[in-house]
Parts: sequence; C-alpha cells; structure tokens
Amino acid sequence: MSRDWILDACAVADADCQAQALARQAQLTKPPGSLGALEALAVKLAALQRRAHPQVERVWISVFAADHGVAAEGVSAFPQAVTGEMVRNFAGGGAAISVLARALDATLDVVNLGTVNDPGEIVGVRRAIVAASSANFCTQAAMSAAQLQAALDAGAESVGLARASGAQLYIGGEMGIANTTAATALACALLGRAPTELTGAGTGLDAAGIAHKVAVIERALALHADVHDAREQLRCLGGFEIAALSGAFIAAAQAGVPVLVDGYIATVAALAATRLNPGVREWLLFAHRSHERGHGLLLQALDAQPLLDLGMRLGEASGAAVAVPLLRLACALHEGMATFAQAGVSERA
Amino acid sequence: MSRDWILDACAVADADCQAQALARQAQLTKPPGSLGALEALAVKLAALQRRAHPQVERVWISVFAADHGVAAEGVSAFPQAVTGEMVRNFAGGGAAISVLARALDATLDVVNLGTVNDPGEIVGVRRAIVAASSANFCTQAAMSAAQLQAALDAGAESVGLARASGAQLYIGGEMGIANTTAATALACALLGRAPTELTGAGTGLDAAGIAHKVAVIERALALHADVHDAREQLRCLGGFEIAALSGAFIAAAQAGVPVLVDGYIATVAALAATRLNPGVREWLLFAHRSHERGHGLLLQALDAQPLLDLGMRLGEASGAAVAVPLLRLACALHEGMATFAQAGVSERA
Repeated sequence: MSRDWILDACAVADADCQAQALARQAQLTKPPGSLGALEALAVKLAALQRRAHPQVERVWISVFAADHGVAAEGVSAFPQAVTGEMVRNFAGGGAAISVLARALDATLDVVNLGTVNDPGEIVGVRRAIVAASSANFCTQAAMSAAQLQAALDAGAESVGLARASGAQLYIGGEMGIANTTAATALACALLGRAPTELTGAGTGLDAAGIAHKVAVIERALALHADVHDAREQLRCLGGFEIAALSGAFIAAAQAGVPVLVDGYIATVAALAATRLNPGVREWLLFAHRSHERGHGLLLQALDAQPLLDLGMRLGEASGAAVAVPLLRLACALHEGMATFAQAGVSERA
Repeated sequence: MSRDWILDACAVADADCQAQALARQAQLTKPPGSLGALEALAVKLAALQRRAHPQVERVWISVFAADHGVAAEGVSAFPQAVTGEMVRNFAGGGAAISVLARALDATLDVVNLGTVNDPGEIVGVRRAIVAASSANFCTQAAMSAAQLQAALDAGAESVGLARASGAQLYIGGEMGIANTTAATALACALLGRAPTELTGAGTGLDAAGIAHKVAVIERALALHADVHDAREQLRCLGGFEIAALSGAFIAAAQAGVPVLVDGYIATVAALAATRLNPGVREWLLFAHRSHERGHGLLLQALDAQPLLDLGMRLGEASGAAVAVPLLRLACALHEGMATFAQAGVSERA
C-alpha cells in the first residue's frame, strides 16, 4: 500500500437510516428515552451500518502484539518476555480476550508485529513482523518511516480480513510490555499535556515506579520536542501495535465498518487516527472508561462517553469485548420490541 | 404461608469458595486486579453459589404487574389502562423485558397481581390476583394486612419456581402505572427523606407534573406519619408488586439464590426487604444506576455499587437483564482463563 491511503476519505453515515431508527425508537412500547444509551446506540449503529435495523452478530477482534525499545528503561512491572508468551496464550485460548472472543462467538485475529521473545509460527497467529522491537524512544525515534508504514498497513490489512468475513463491528486490541509508556508519551505529545497529568500504573507500578516512568517519558518528550506533526509524533513515540491500531481505525472508517474502541492504549491510537484523518471520529464507539489514570483526559479530548466503567485496565481488547453484549441487546431491543400500535398499548395521556 | 417466614434466617455465603475464587483470580494471566469489577463479581458469585467456579447460565426473571390507587391523583404521564395492556405485551413478546429474556435465554415469569384493566387469562401470565388495585394511600393504607401478606407470598412463590427450575440468578421486575409514586413515598418513609429529595419524572412527567407528584407524596406521608415499622410502611405506602419484590428478595436470600436488583423501584423493594430481614443484603447484586432521580440516594443507603450507568429508567427488570452478560462474562473469564503456570507466562519481575 502507498502512504496516501491514510488520507483517503472516510465513509459517510446514512442520515435516512438514522432518522428511521430514531422514529422507530419513539414508537416502541416504552416511555421515550427510557432505554437510555441503548437507544442512542441503536440509532448510531443504524446510521453507520446504513440499515434501519442494525446488527452486531459478526464481531471481528484483532489483537496486535509488539515489543517496545523503551522497556529497557525499566518502566513495566512485568518482564519483556511476557509479550511473546502472551501471543502464545492468545492463540492457546487462555488469555482474557481468548475467553471473551469464544463467549461472544467473535473472530479473534492475533497479529504478531514483532516480539523480542519470538514465539515463532503458531497456529492462530498471523505474522506481520515489522522488527523484533521498536527502538528506545529515549534515544532515537521509535520507528523508521518504513516501519511506521508497515504497522499502519498491518492495521488496514486486518480490516480487509474483517470486511471479507462480513464483520459488522471491528475491535482492535493490543499487547506489548511497556506500551502504556509509549501510549502516554504519544498522548502527551498529541494533547500538549505533561507526563504527570497522564502517566499511570500500567500493569501495576508502585508510586516510585510511576515517578520513574514519568521521568522516562519526560526525557523522550524533550528529545522529540521539535516534532509537531501527528504522523511524526506517532513514528517517534508510538509503537508497532499502536500504529497498527491507528491504521486499522482509519481503514475501518474508510470502509464504513463501525469500531468499538477498547481502553487506554486503543484510545491513544484512536486519538492519533483522528489527527491523521478527522473523518475517523464518527466511526468510533467507546466501550469503557479504563482504570488507567490518563484515560479520562483522552476520552474528554475525543468527546467520548464510554458505555462501561468497571475499573478494567487489561487491554487486549478485553474492555471492548465486554461491551459487545450491550450493543447486541441494543440491536435486539430495536428490532424485537413491539410498537404501541402493534401491542395495543395506550400512549401518553 | 405464615407471616413468620419473612423473619427466617437467610442463607450464609461460603467463605471457602470465596477464598478459592480469590486465589484463582490472582493466578490468571493478567495483572492482578486488571479485570476490575468482573473479578469481584466472580468472587462474590462463588461465595453466594457455594462453588469455586460460579455460573449464571440459568437466569430467572419474574415481572410483577399491579395497579395503584394513587394513580387517581394524576401522578403518571400514562393512563392506568397501560398496566394491563403491558401484561399482554410481556406475554406477547413485544416488551423490552420480553426481548431481553429471549436474547439472554432466560426464563420470563409474568405475574399479574391485580390490574384495573384486567387482561384476563393469558398464556404466559400467572394470575396471583391480590385485588384489582391497591387503595389510594393519600386517603387510607395502600393494602390490608392480608393483601400485603398475599403480595409477599407471591414473591416467595416465584422464588420457589425459580429454584425448581435450577435458576442460578434471580431477577425481579415490575410494571404498574403510578408505581414510582408509591416507591418514592415508601423510600421517603424508610429513609426519613423529604419527597423533594427523591421524587423524579417516572415515565416522563414535566416540572409541573413532578411538583404535583411531590405534593401527593407529601399528603400521603402526612397521613401515615405515625407509621415507623418497615412492614407497616410497606403496607401503607407500597404496592402489590413492590411488596412481591420485597418478598421475593427475602425468599431468595433465605434459599441462597443470588439476586440481581434492577432499578429504582426494585431498589426500594430491596431496601424494604433489608429492613424486614437484614440478612438479605448479602444476596443482592446491583445491576445499574437508574436515570430516575432518587436512585442515587437509595443505592447509597444500601452501600451498593451498580455495574451499569446507561441512563435507563424503564423498569420491567430491563436494567438487570442488560447486566446479565457482564455476570456471565465474569464467570467465563474466571473459569476459562489460563493460570501463569498453565500458559508458561512469566509473572511480575
């Protein structure tokens, strides 16, 4: 793929389907508005899917795994070997997202973009290796231009597979030791915020660990202080899986496939995607408010109201997966409820 | 049934199963605590179901319908005929809870406790008629002692049916024009709060309608100001379906069946149940924060942290039904995830 696809126009939601869905919601046997966010969800999905009765039966989940050079700075509570080990766990069915995908009857697509502890060929894992790891962004750019492009393309490729499978919803997840550090550095650059405002515990740092993580991110931001273009910020401070998510979200928006955004890292990738191509925003639904500290500011920057607030902070697309039943039930209610006329129920006095 | 069953001891949760579940959560391939409320849910359900691996496959939903004498005061946006019409709609499959029960493969038990516009015998509706309506509590007690007992017993009977079907979770819902007025009057009495603190829009009153509703509740509270016993407060200010829910929650706690509490009215019934029998509280999980105004104070009084906050305010058990997939996914994760040892994933550095 050429670089240019990133800037291609996003699909346009269907105002007629939206209006039809809105009118139908007003006729269903319930006080108007009493299903709250579930009503808005059904209407939004109708607009995005261009059908008056939306469906979320076929769900595609891509989980992108990658290692980060900045792990060398000691910013994670877990050793770097875990990234590769978890790739095997995703495919083996034992990870949270593996269990959730099975429970939801969703397709789970595991993509290895580069792990230092490479698990090699595994059934159920697609290899789209960019490099064994990104570079340590405290000393140089995280990625070369070619690596960034490869990661963005890997995201778009997953959307192509999702479309080919008839997916009605795209979910992207991530795994990569030290990737809350990369995501936070990128978020600080994109939002013009200080690391102290956004840095959190990741997989479980204590206060001293968080202070060290802040200092690492400050060094990175100082090194790349002259970088103001979003694409360059993503290249210098991101990671392969973050860039892949950004690419996937852009490609999904261009293809007209609604996206359910997971937690902290996925939201940073979504923010980067909207900076690269503002048309992306309309295609994003937000699943949950992560317990990771900086998520609130990110959601605010995207004017996003997530569906769930369960204190989750795992990543892997797990928060998005947990929200899928809400979308499905919103569609079931929209499709299956009787109107006042059909049920012979009196309307407001 | 005799009146005395209300005071019978509630079942006791299993501390060993709770400890086993907690230990297992710490070994699963995720940072400790990263599944947030889903971890606590699995552990809580393990304790209540007395099994290290809880399940929420078999879900029982009883929806109790009843009319209210206080409807004569003009406190609802909908005509009283709607209660009976909705009983037919529940059984016919067109109501929100009908759609949700189908989608969840849950058992839907519709119980007619007394409707002015009586739909008569309907397949799928159990008749447990207490009277055509409660009395207008602005002028007399809402129920006689015998009516209250009949309503409490009807709740317990539904739990008996749920147990016989092997239900792993009990949900109770309600329908009854003017029942937010009854629930609010009862809540004010139970909590010692003023109607202005708790009264909301119900099915959709405007500001003038809410002011009128407040005045009606003030009259009722003045008439029954000398009533301080919880059982008498329920009798004077409640309604058949509210009392049935209270009875059901007590019976479920006595039988050791976890309860998922719906929204505003179900929470008032739960509060009354805990006043009648404090052992009930341990058996209650809270599904959602209703958009109905007084729900926050009720949840606070019960020290309840609900799972969802979607702006729902429909009743019928709809909010509880929407939360069922969260319980199921919490159980699936608890059961299906691999441990660090099983998956060969490294633990914290």
